[in-house]
Amino acid sequence: MATTDQMIAAVHAYVEAFDKSDVSIIDNIFAEDATVEDPIGTPIHNGKAAILAFYSGAMQTGAKLALQEPVRVVADYAAFAFSVVLNYGGSEKKIDVIDTFKFNGAGKVVEMRAYWGPTNMNGF
Amino acid sequence: MATTDQMIAAVHAYVEAFDKSDVSIIDNIFAEDATVEDPIGTPIHNGKAAILAFYSGAMQTGAKLALQEPVRVVADYAAFAFSVVLNYGGSEKKIDVIDTFKFNGAGKVVEMRAYWGPTNMNGF
Repeated sequence: MATTDQMIAAVHAYVEAFDKSDVSIIDNIFAEDATVEDPIGTPIHNGKAAILAFYSGAMQTGAKLALQEPVRVVADYAAFAFSVVLNYGGSEKKIDVIDTFKFNGAGKVVEMRAYWGPTNMNGF
Repeated sequence: MATTDQMIAAVHAYVEAFDKSDVSIIDNIFAEDATVEDPIGTPIHNGKAAILAFYSGAMQTGAKLALQEPVRVVADYAAFAFSVVLNYGGSEKKIDVIDTFKFNGAGKVVEMRAYWGPTNMNGF
């Protein structure tokens, strides 16, 4: 099973990936057969290639993540609250999000789900 | 499907239930066939009777919930970050938690999952 330290480090690396607009960090966090559902209810990005394409697009918006510590960690899950801050249409926008990561035994994320909807979008 | 307003109101009622130590508020939030897994990885409380017994016990510790707004709402889910504050062993303890609620079409919670582990327990 993934260790608590591995899971917390993966969340911090996820924030760093956006800070640096470096999708190679995302590549290192996720398992090859991972799924990403962002937000919940939208089509799932299935497998590493689809996931990297999704995050490359997200990073092109200039989005940065402001993590609201602490990361919650239990069993093979991490859950974390944060705000996405991005410039869109000439002004700063903020989206409040909670993500959950499920990890495999190698410490890689196999399932990511993002909880945010219209009421969590500020300034749009 | 549950409305956004219903889902946010259910989360606020959940906090109020602890504030008032009133399990009848919990009774009103959850569906008869709901499940509660708190924290993830522990045995699931299955059905209303088991759920009310679980929350009655939790309230007997004097636990109160400090919600970290905003509640994240999408599709048939709400996710929310909070701290549980309780007195235990003569001093105040704090547990940082993220819960997810899944709702049925009548606006009742059918699945609750709580994300918190040893690293989220402060002062124990």
